[in-house]
Amino acid sequence: MVISVRDQVLPHLAWHRLGEYLHETQLLGSIQATLYWDQNTTMPTESASWRAEQLTLLARQLHSRQSSDHFADLIAEAKAEFHQMRQSGDLNLKEIEDREKNIELLEIDLGRQKRLDPDLVSSLAAAKAKGYSLWQHARSRSEFECFAPALRELISLRKEQARQLSEQRSCWETLAQPFEPDLTIGRLTELFEPLRKSLPQLIEKVKGRERPISSQWDLSATSQKTLCNQLLKEWGRDSRITCIATSPHPFSITLGPKDFRLTTRIVDGQPLSCFLATAHEWGHSLYEQGLPNQSHQWFAWPLGQATSMAVHESQSLFWENRIARSRAFSERFWPYFAKEGAPLNCGLDLWQAMNPLIPGCNRVEADELSYGLHILIRTEIEIALLEEDMEVESLPKEWNRRYEDLLGVQPENDREGCLQDVHWSEGQFGYFPSYLLGHLISAQLAEAMTATLQKLGIDDEDPIEKCIRNGDESTLLSWLRKEVHIHGRKMNAETLVERVTGTPLSSSAFLNYLQRKLDIVNCAS
Amino acid sequence: MVISVRDQVLPHLAWHRLGEYLHETQLLGSIQATLYWDQNTTMPTESASWRAEQLTLLARQLHSRQSSDHFADLIAEAKAEFHQMRQSGDLNLKEIEDREKNIELLEIDLGRQKRLDPDLVSSLAAAKAKGYSLWQHARSRSEFECFAPALRELISLRKEQARQLSEQRSCWETLAQPFEPDLTIGRLTELFEPLRKSLPQLIEKVKGRERPISSQWDLSATSQKTLCNQLLKEWGRDSRITCIATSPHPFSITLGPKDFRLTTRIVDGQPLSCFLATAHEWGHSLYEQGLPNQSHQWFAWPLGQATSMAVHESQSLFWENRIARSRAFSERFWPYFAKEGAPLNCGLDLWQAMNPLIPGCNRVEADELSYGLHILIRTEIEIALLEEDMEVESLPKEWNRRYEDLLGVQPENDREGCLQDVHWSEGQFGYFPSYLLGHLISAQLAEAMTATLQKLGIDDEDPIEKCIRNGDESTLLSWLRKEVHIHGRKMNAETLVERVTGTPLSSSAFLNYLQRKLDIVNCAS
Repeated sequence: MVISVRDQVLPHLAWHRLGEYLHETQLLGSIQATLYWDQNTTMPTESASWRAEQLTLLARQLHSRQSSDHFADLIAEAKAEFHQMRQSGDLNLKEIEDREKNIELLEIDLGRQKRLDPDLVSSLAAAKAKGYSLWQHARSRSEFECFAPALRELISLRKEQARQLSEQRSCWETLAQPFEPDLTIGRLTELFEPLRKSLPQLIEKVKGRERPISSQWDLSATSQKTLCNQLLKEWGRDSRITCIATSPHPFSITLGPKDFRLTTRIVDGQPLSCFLATAHEWGHSLYEQGLPNQSHQWFAWPLGQATSMAVHESQSLFWENRIARSRAFSERFWPYFAKEGAPLNCGLDLWQAMNPLIPGCNRVEADELSYGLHILIRTEIEIALLEEDMEVESLPKEWNRRYEDLLGVQPENDREGCLQDVHWSEGQFGYFPSYLLGHLISAQLAEAMTATLQKLGIDDEDPIEKCIRNGDESTLLSWLRKEVHIHGRKMNAETLVERVTGTPLSSSAFLNYLQRKLDIVNCAS
Repeated sequence: MVISVRDQVLPHLAWHRLGEYLHETQLLGSIQATLYWDQNTTMPTESASWRAEQLTLLARQLHSRQSSDHFADLIAEAKAEFHQMRQSGDLNLKEIEDREKNIELLEIDLGRQKRLDPDLVSSLAAAKAKGYSLWQHARSRSEFECFAPALRELISLRKEQARQLSEQRSCWETLAQPFEPDLTIGRLTELFEPLRKSLPQLIEKVKGRERPISSQWDLSATSQKTLCNQLLKEWGRDSRITCIATSPHPFSITLGPKDFRLTTRIVDGQPLSCFLATAHEWGHSLYEQGLPNQSHQWFAWPLGQATSMAVHESQSLFWENRIARSRAFSERFWPYFAKEGAPLNCGLDLWQAMNPLIPGCNRVEADELSYGLHILIRTEIEIALLEEDMEVESLPKEWNRRYEDLLGVQPENDREGCLQDVHWSEGQFGYFPSYLLGHLISAQLAEAMTATLQKLGIDDEDPIEKCIRNGDESTLLSWLRKEVHIHGRKMNAETLVERVTGTPLSSSAFLNYLQRKLDIVNCAS
């Protein structure tokens, strides 16, 4: 074996020492993620308080590592070494760019961690675990009152967190940063206001349409799992690095450089829920699998991470909506559904079941037409709770009023209303807008992808549909890997979108896409 | 709420501080156990090396906590405080006994940890993970050579561990201590020699018996799971604190004060394997559930732990052999098997399938008659590998020769031979004898249980069989909880057995029990 001079020197470099430190932090973080996975997929219910203690212990350890003076020194030393090496010409252009960005991101993250009181970090971890457990309880009994005290505590702790971080942003904006770097309420309003106007008008156009056939049939759990397996098989799942389980709320999580997991769930009376959740979570997983983290060495560095939750959602929504809910996909997949006993006679039957286009109370089960309105309601309420002193007690009332106003529906109870989502139970505020931004990004990326594919000679009015029709999703995946996944945290969401699509992010691609979907409805009826 | 003076003082006591420290150690230990569980039940294969790194990190943290000067100080302070409180009459008799034993056990454990070099602890954790992974690989290809280097490394590290521990015992004895406190090779020989003579004679008596019907049928995985669920339902499983999964090698593990897990496996062509493994692991789990650790407070103290692996095995074997393989159980359960499609016409059919009484090559699938011989072979080989310089290369040959000599069978390949058990792949030497000691203890406990039940007025020649016939295993469980489980680490295995049964441990109860089993065979034929 030949050892180059560079390899021999490596362990003495400050850059290498920093990498070792980040690597151990990542090991701890992935242990925490494994406990979270187990808690949601396997753990017996009575173990909740012990699990909360384990997670609190790890959160304390992680915070201590991520805010320690030793860590700050390692970053400073690596930065000094980097400047020296750049000057002496020891690094190529890509190395310079990557190291510079890594240091910048590490300094931002360290600054945030250092400003937080360790006691607050422990309290938050404990409050999250307790909140999750009480939310489950409250949800099963449909009694918001059981969950209200935990929510009040989480809001108070998160406000305190924003105060300690003391960024030049509002409380809600500060908490949204980890999900959506550089997002402001102003920019959000700019992006969302056209939707507030247009979506109800679009919904109005399909009003009075009959309830689709999917509300009148169901599939066994076994059949639903068979269909999900078939889906992921056709989408290239490698079972040596992925696994699937069920949980109350579907999610995707990465537990190591070669350990990508996702969950789905069976919902009685909703035969497509499990299938679409699998498609959605698989989109998340593909993004994680495509990040520049395919070796232990790089898994630990910030550049190897997802850039924002909106970009993450754009990927899951692309696979769920742009592919699985497309006309071409239904044409290809309906025979599998029929084989499992679904009463479908053609692709259009499946497509209509996949696209009910009727507003309901549930966000996760919502179609693309009304989905955005669910998010507008949550975003407004979050900002009101954190910045406008809205009382926690009034949440169910405020929730229901807004649903009546925007969607014209009323939840029957809190379980179907303000208790439906897990996020607030874990203290996650500022996350919801990412879902809707994800819709906008997915649609805008799809337009750019269409242009590329046409240039590559895929001769079709809609080359994405053509790839789906041919079972050639790998072509679409290659584009996503090259244009989106591989960049990691190099750019924030808006910069990435503008770079890939040539125009700033807006709601127009999404609204055009919805209009095309309505055209199919009109053609079919 | 009334707060007594004592509660107010508690946090200032050295005893309480020690408890807090142990509690955190236990949290870390249970995190490690959770990763182990996930590794064996869920983790995708390619994640093995990352998981090994996580486990190594936790092993290093745990060792550091368990051998730190701070920990030693906490024990010393708590001990001094204990002596003072005893003198001033602040403790009742039970408190004095418990605290004294807890301190004694903590000092033994601390002494062991302190003598170990942290580098050795890390190396061992890494070698275990690597050994397990290579063993899986070697086993799937049935090539011992792939695993040999890892085994050689594990032996060398474990010998070094015994050297560092420098106890007044041989290498093998030193490594066996954590499983079987106070065990010596001399005592083991005394207990096992009667079996080496008698078991082959008993096997000879049933030689030439036809292969039982169970080798000619099978059950679907779904049916096997249904039967396991029925079993645990009748045995009082509480699903809020337990869960079940499948893994290549069945095991039982405790992940928290209210989190008891077990695994089983489906073996093609062996329709009872999954059922009996479930019964076995449930016996382990019941022991853990019955230990004096039912609150977070006590989970951390040594007294709340299992006293030895032999006692642990005695509990699993009691449920597997004494109950599930009994005549009365077959009479009660055969209709469930028949309903799932097993070709059984009466209880005796099921009983014969449960008790093939024909020697084979596989330990886990072995019946009670030949089981002991599997253990004698492993014990001899372990001692030879660790103390008599037996070469790792010669293991398959030595293994096969002994099987021919003692059991008259020859494995077809290494997968069926020396690669069948997981233990050595994780560096566990000194564990196997506990299985056989467990048979002896189970039989001797059953004799004492019989006497108690007769005194309690259960009017039957075999009151255990009567309880099983009536589906009243809860009476048997109550006895086990009161006489065995609740004592934790208060006494070692032999002291416990002598205290409960009135006589020192020996092989006679077990040999009597086997003779009675053979009588049923003779009656039936």
